[in-house]
Amino acid sequence: MQDILTVGVAGGSGSGKTTLTESLIERFGDAVAVVHHDNYYRAHDDLTYEERSRLNYDRPDSFETEMMAEHLRLLKMGRSVHCPVYDYTVHNRSSETVLIEPRPVILVEGIMIFAEPSLVEQMDIKIFVDTDADIRLCRRVVRDVRDRARTVENVTRQWMETVKPMHEMYVEPSKKVADIIVPEGGKNRVALDMIIGRIERHLAGVHERD
Amino acid sequence: MQDILTVGVAGGSGSGKTTLTESLIERFGDAVAVVHHDNYYRAHDDLTYEERSRLNYDRPDSFETEMMAEHLRLLKMGRSVHCPVYDYTVHNRSSETVLIEPRPVILVEGIMIFAEPSLVEQMDIKIFVDTDADIRLCRRVVRDVRDRARTVENVTRQWMETVKPMHEMYVEPSKKVADIIVPEGGKNRVALDMIIGRIERHLAGVHERD
Repeated sequence: MQDILTVGVAGGSGSGKTTLTESLIERFGDAVAVVHHDNYYRAHDDLTYEERSRLNYDRPDSFETEMMAEHLRLLKMGRSVHCPVYDYTVHNRSSETVLIEPRPVILVEGIMIFAEPSLVEQMDIKIFVDTDADIRLCRRVVRDVRDRARTVENVTRQWMETVKPMHEMYVEPSKKVADIIVPEGGKNRVALDMIIGRIERHLAGVHERD
Repeated sequence: MQDILTVGVAGGSGSGKTTLTESLIERFGDAVAVVHHDNYYRAHDDLTYEERSRLNYDRPDSFETEMMAEHLRLLKMGRSVHCPVYDYTVHNRSSETVLIEPRPVILVEGIMIFAEPSLVEQMDIKIFVDTDADIRLCRRVVRDVRDRARTVENVTRQWMETVKPMHEMYVEPSKKVADIIVPEGGKNRVALDMIIGRIERHLAGVHERD
């Protein structure tokens, strides 16, 4: 059990935490399992599409965090889990699940994961990717307009009404629990090298004990 | 020349950067040379003690940074330097110097080093130790009253009149150039381990090429 290193990667919307996470997956391949908080958005089978689309998805209680915490515990015990899959097109949990198998490194990724003690207490290393709000907004507008067929008006209204206030209420204060803060996660080669080195040492240790 | 790793450690007064630096010195001993910006406070032989004690020492131009930048260049070329020594009891540069010999790792430490491009451009890794202003003030009051025979009134007045405004003007914005930000430098074991690991890898590389 102590052979598993759990690394949390948090940061606001558009901060570059996904780029950082993907760089680590690319580097370490099958040695890492990744658990995304986003996949644990609550199921809302009781609501209509219209009702679901009006929900605030930027609050901690949007997530079924207790299930994710349990999945992390299982992975750390060397057991596989069936991770839910969220379908953004219908604003609801899909009927599929994805099998996540235990690996020597578990990456935990999400905007609000550091605001959840049940997740934080399971992490060995907590990395917060810190990027200015205006830069994050630029990225989010481009992504949502290009890839999610949203209008600029819609994206900026959501930013002002929920993303920004929720960021300031939950995400920004959660930075306090971070072990290291990485400015501009994706492009920050020096920090990425340091994180890669830390994981390499962990993996070398695992192999030594084989 | 590329066998020398230059690591900058910056952060506000009382942030814990000295504790971090000392942990690295303790860990790596003779493998590291340390260059403190504080030792490059300008000489003021032209002023009286009274005049010198009224100077603002929290501005970038309080330091003879051009000399420090030149010393860094020399150390990185494998040459020794004679570092000036500042005497706080007389608010002036002393007549002594200290010999700093080149080492495979150069630590550069100081509150304002990231506000100086001539220093920044010579650093491979830039670490900013980030600690809340109130915590930093607590430490500074205790240190200055206990170790430097200052009064609480004197310390807090200096904080409000120069330390805080200069921090906000020069130190806080200089955080932008950091590669990693370390909350609570001294006590942050996870971050310290990551930095130690990075330096170990550098030193291992140096030995491999021997």
